[in-house]
Amino acid sequence: MQLFPNTSMRFKFPFVAICLQISMIILFGFFVDYENKLKYLQQTNSSSQPDKFIELYPLFRDVHVMIFIGFGFLMTFLKKYGFSSVGINLLIAALGLQWGTLIQGLLHHRKKFYIGIKSIINADFSTATVLISFGAVLGKTSPVQMLIMVILEIAVFGVNEYLVGEILKATDIGASMTIHAFGAYFGLAVAGVLYRPGLRRRRNDNEESMYHSDLFAMIGTLFLWIFWPSFNSAIAEAGDHQYRAIVNTYFSLAACVLTAFAFSCFVEHHGKLDMVHIQNATLAGGVAVGTCADLAIQPCGAMLIGSIAGIVSVLGFKFLTPFFATKLRIHDTCGVHNLHGLPGVIGGIASIAAVALGVTDETTMAMQAAALGTSLGTAIVGGLLTGLILKIPIWGAPPDQNCYDDSVYWEVPGVEGYNHYFHETGDHRQLQSED
Amino acid sequence: MQLFPNTSMRFKFPFVAICLQISMIILFGFFVDYENKLKYLQQTNSSSQPDKFIELYPLFRDVHVMIFIGFGFLMTFLKKYGFSSVGINLLIAALGLQWGTLIQGLLHHRKKFYIGIKSIINADFSTATVLISFGAVLGKTSPVQMLIMVILEIAVFGVNEYLVGEILKATDIGASMTIHAFGAYFGLAVAGVLYRPGLRRRRNDNEESMYHSDLFAMIGTLFLWIFWPSFNSAIAEAGDHQYRAIVNTYFSLAACVLTAFAFSCFVEHHGKLDMVHIQNATLAGGVAVGTCADLAIQPCGAMLIGSIAGIVSVLGFKFLTPFFATKLRIHDTCGVHNLHGLPGVIGGIASIAAVALGVTDETTMAMQAAALGTSLGTAIVGGLLTGLILKIPIWGAPPDQNCYDDSVYWEVPGVEGYNHYFHETGDHRQLQSED
Amino acid sequence: MQLFPNTSMRFKFPFVAICLQISMIILFGFFVDYENKLKYLQQTNSSSQPDKFIELYPLFRDVHVMIFIGFGFLMTFLKKYGFSSVGINLLIAALGLQWGTLIQGLLHHRKKFYIGIKSIINADFSTATVLISFGAVLGKTSPVQMLIMVILEIAVFGVNEYLVGEILKATDIGASMTIHAFGAYFGLAVAGVLYRPGLRRRRNDNEESMYHSDLFAMIGTLFLWIFWPSFNSAIAEAGDHQYRAIVNTYFSLAACVLTAFAFSCFVEHHGKLDMVHIQNATLAGGVAVGTCADLAIQPCGAMLIGSIAGIVSVLGFKFLTPFFATKLRIHDTCGVHNLHGLPGVIGGIASIAAVALGVTDETTMAMQAAALGTSLGTAIVGGLLTGLILKIPIWGAPPDQNCYDDSVYWEVPGVEGYNHYFHETGDHRQLQSED
Repeated sequence: MQLFPNTSMRFKFPFVAICLQISMIILFGFFVDYENKLKYLQQTNSSSQPDKFIELYPLFRDVHVMIFIGFGFLMTFLKKYGFSSVGINLLIAALGLQWGTLIQGLLHHRKKFYIGIKSIINADFSTATVLISFGAVLGKTSPVQMLIMVILEIAVFGVNEYLVGEILKATDIGASMTIHAFGAYFGLAVAGVLYRPGLRRRRNDNEESMYHSDLFAMIGTLFLWIFWPSFNSAIAEAGDHQYRAIVNTYFSLAACVLTAFAFSCFVEHHGKLDMVHIQNATLAGGVAVGTCADLAIQPCGAMLIGSIAGIVSVLGFKFLTPFFATKLRIHDTCGVHNLHGLPGVIGGIASIAAVALGVTDETTMAMQAAALGTSLGTAIVGGLLTGLILKIPIWGAPPDQNCYDDSVYWEVPGVEGYNHYFHETGDHRQLQSED
Repeated sequence: MQLFPNTSMRFKFPFVAICLQISMIILFGFFVDYENKLKYLQQTNSSSQPDKFIELYPLFRDVHVMIFIGFGFLMTFLKKYGFSSVGINLLIAALGLQWGTLIQGLLHHRKKFYIGIKSIINADFSTATVLISFGAVLGKTSPVQMLIMVILEIAVFGVNEYLVGEILKATDIGASMTIHAFGAYFGLAVAGVLYRPGLRRRRNDNEESMYHSDLFAMIGTLFLWIFWPSFNSAIAEAGDHQYRAIVNTYFSLAACVLTAFAFSCFVEHHGKLDMVHIQNATLAGGVAVGTCADLAIQPCGAMLIGSIAGIVSVLGFKFLTPFFATKLRIHDTCGVHNLHGLPGVIGGIASIAAVALGVTDETTMAMQAAALGTSLGTAIVGGLLTGLILKIPIWGAPPDQNCYDDSVYWEVPGVEGYNHYFHETGDHRQLQSED
Repeated sequence: MQLFPNTSMRFKFPFVAICLQISMIILFGFFVDYENKLKYLQQTNSSSQPDKFIELYPLFRDVHVMIFIGFGFLMTFLKKYGFSSVGINLLIAALGLQWGTLIQGLLHHRKKFYIGIKSIINADFSTATVLISFGAVLGKTSPVQMLIMVILEIAVFGVNEYLVGEILKATDIGASMTIHAFGAYFGLAVAGVLYRPGLRRRRNDNEESMYHSDLFAMIGTLFLWIFWPSFNSAIAEAGDHQYRAIVNTYFSLAACVLTAFAFSCFVEHHGKLDMVHIQNATLAGGVAVGTCADLAIQPCGAMLIGSIAGIVSVLGFKFLTPFFATKLRIHDTCGVHNLHGLPGVIGGIASIAAVALGVTDETTMAMQAAALGTSLGTAIVGGLLTGLILKIPIWGAPPDQNCYDDSVYWEVPGVEGYNHYFHETGDHRQLQSED
């Protein structure tokens, strides 16, 4: 009988966090070293040169902004869950980039390895995967559960990326399949296992936006939008490939904005724009063009992919998300299926079409299809197993009536201010037994 | 008789947006291709080398941040118009950068052309022009009207820029005249044609800021301020010119902040600072130094230009904007005349003075004066014609009582939250017939 | 007898600001010129090459974002002091970077000097020092007082930096000692001299955050966090040193986040996270690793430093800040002692340990200890003297009951909106005599 999840939070969370941090320091001590020219020559299969570090640093930093500001603020749309959105996003990412560095280094080198610019870009990428999944379970999980998800998901992500890149040798430069689709379906699988019928019966008033929380979320949207060309080109081969990755992403995103606005207006029966669509579907073009971003698909081809992604994403929010929540018992808080899942699958299909149209001969249709299948399969199996582990009732998950509410895990500004802000009179910090 | 503008919005806006996007894809298919070394050699008058792409990419991205975050959030100062400010800003920019790429490419090459880094920087620049004009009509126009303005204004902008740069061969590296003054006077001309006497008779309560909307606007101000040196130097000649463009803009902006603060305090009768001045006039130094930014005007010269611009801009907000609204029947929502119009003219005059003082011999006083005159003339004529087209009562413009109110075009968070937020009890979604 | 501080503000502040700006223009006219190759060759001890300008420009710009967005928004946590936080931050920085350019140029060259990329990076650095001190006195001082503090503090900072870098030849690449510890202890000394017993007796209700002001502050936190590797590496020697400065800072910050979250949860008796800790202590790793950032301390060493800094910073907020306020009569509004002071000292101690462990032989333990002592000593003496000058009752300091309230120096949006927002009915603009 666990009467006070917060009391348990007081000891469990610090204990888990400190143990993980100590482990990271020890593992880094054993396995991680600086890169330099001498070491670089000894390490044959390195993919980055020390000289390149400062050249690619601006691209890395753009990705960094996307991870911490972009993902963090995109999730602040919930009126009472802003602290957790930016705060737990930061916590997840801080652990994820340490663990991602280790996992990817060990998978590729299997011994002591050296930190290059691509190591830290890839660490941010593996973190992105967890943050996408976080969107599906936002508001319904505890910080301890998220720390565990970081450890499990990044390990599975590393394995899948190794399969796709090293074994199948498929192309996926902007990671539509390995990050976006993977992260989305992993998160949906976790959300399915953790499904709370109680939340469906009694709709939680906190699962809403308010005027300014929607504006905070637009900070996230816009920084993601602006820097997406850097995301898709950060690890592309220098020269034509990197150039095309930037240009294709730029135009795909621009086209996506117009179709997302058009369909947002069209599907609402008052003909009004829906902020949820604008915050999310305008980014679908960046996801969908990812796999083919560095190929010569032509600017108009990129715009076509972006246009389709914008439409599919809006339709997903309008029709699929409610269907998932009611029929499939999968509740996707941020609609990551529409922003990352479907557009990620479109990205994989687009790459198959690109091979069919003779745009590239560096990969085959079969390998691209296998990469898409592997990513989805690994994600769903990994997500189901992770969900089962997170379901063990010792991680301090919030009771139903405290979902989407910062005050379970955060000191919120004076009751006066907080309640005033949200028109409340009852004590919504009152918690009840969890099991 | 059009009873429900929103019903019409439901079909007109998606129809226009989708048609435009399809046209863009087709036109890109015909005219736009990737740049590469071979093509580059064939295309003699190209101004960018493929190798330069990744070098200039960081400057491009700064400009991108200014367009989407800077302009977008700068306009969120209105308490109930934040969704439209950042949202329609994104829509305008997404269409504008596609159309700007086409117009500029076709004007310079008149056949199939190749996308270089300067193409996408210039596409962002042409978009900036429309966003400046958007500021003058903010809150009084519909999304459909804005899409039409994008198409018309960028075409006129392209012609004017061609005249100034290719025919007059005037210098205007930071585009004080061709972007800032042009965008401002174009917008003022449109605002003059679309003048609504009804809004003057019954002051609209929504045309105000609230505490947090002013803070959101400061996000826009600060990102514009920080990245302005990149804006003024992005297409400057590498080396000394680019270096000077950065340094001059940096010091001009710094000086401008002090004079803007000083005069903001001085002109208010309580001696208090006015957030409108701080949000806008602190940027006037970046506009005003633009034309001369890459010339050897000395850091102290740049500071002098910035100081003057800060003062003129504050005085413009205090005295000219009310005069324009009441006497000239031109209502300028964001005060773009004070941030972009006057400082842009100062920029042109500064360049004439610079030639007179022998700072450069790459241009003449007559050419600079002609460039300023051409920019203002083209802007005003183009703006008047655009205004007449936008006045046709089929574009779903909001009725007077719904100006500056997001709820006409957006689903706003639950009536409870929205009205609470703004102390309202009436149903402000009630619309009346438009014609 | 001074009845209306604002009336005095109306003349004093503009007068001081304009005089300072005119002085800057004149001094720049005498002493500052552009850098170019010829001049570079004449000026032997220059530390930057003209060619390097555009290479280091992206790092400069990151630092610029930290100064204006990072510091500015970090301080918006106070519910009624957001305008001053971002606004006066901009004012201080705009004056500071002009004055910092002059002071550093004159100290190193003692005659006319040339602006290179490192000049403008260093100008931003000197500004950072004042902004840190600003955090200690936030809400309790007038804009005029801050302009005076800029002039005095940057002069003292310049002297200390010259001592540490040129005389002691200590290493402090990320400026843990010369910027962070210096700025914090300078600010604490000023805050001690300006101590207001009245604020202690009657706790000011405005010295609190509200839900959205805490989210605005997170914008500042995250941009500081993201760009801190650029801060610590901006003036590092190109190549291995710069590479290590980036990598070490990246991992130190990541480790710091986990320990800060863990201890924030642990020290609060309900086991809840405290937003003040998350906003500040997650950055302590960037400060603490600064001095050693470019040394080969190993990634795991950097993570250890970051972990310790996160813990010390949270404990400082929990236990030291109240102790300082009640026992030492030093009231530190933003807790700069915990974010910059203690971690800065840790940075200095870490560099002594690094020398002891044989990580570097470019400096000695004695020199590092002397640098730390000099920085602290200069800061405290300089701060005490500055505090005495600021205490002269002619600078329009706000009366106790108007501390932490924007409405003393700013026009705030319509009384209706402002009071509604803050549940107030009284006229809080009523001011009383100051002396």
